[in-house]
Amino acid sequence: MELSDWRDRIDALDRKLVELLNQRARCVLSLAPLKKRTGLPIYEPKREQEVLDNIAAHNGGPLAAEALRRVFERIIDEMRSIQRPLMEDDTK
Amino acid sequence: MELSDWRDRIDALDRKLVELLNQRARCVLSLAPLKKRTGLPIYEPKREQEVLDNIAAHNGGPLAAEALRRVFERIIDEMRSIQRPLMEDDTK
Repeated sequence: MELSDWRDRIDALDRKLVELLNQRARCVLSLAPLKKRTGLPIYEPKREQEVLDNIAAHNGGPLAAEALRRVFERIIDEMRSIQRPLMEDDTK
Repeated sequence: MELSDWRDRIDALDRKLVELLNQRARCVLSLAPLKKRTGLPIYEPKREQEVLDNIAAHNGGPLAAEALRRVFERIIDEMRSIQRPLMEDDTK
């Protein structure tokens, strides 16, 4: 394969990543009202650890565990940001 | 759906994300020798812009363009890190 073939393949993977990240965002937005109703905070260290454990347990490489962890910390951070407006106290 | 159902769905999406990120890493590792042979540097601003344009063009939301961009900047950065050892000058 030539350089341009590899890049086409990478671009196709990136489009799938965009779709999965948006699917994940939709889940996070859907569960926000449930969290709010049950009084759960946006940031739950225990759940965050579960997410990171799930990722580490399913990493077949070649990415190192630490590299994947850094990527997911960014993903989780962006997900918290979109959840925040839905979790704000609307009784004020 | 209950909170635990949403979380199961998120965990399943994360496992797919891990697989796609590793597929992307394998492409990057495969093209490193090609880049080296043709004298291309690890960091190519023009190609990086192409990657970010591709992502922005295929973003159906709900993630904002800027949020996706920040996630992919982290991904690209990790990909550069794994490419670096393969691109070092071995004539020294």
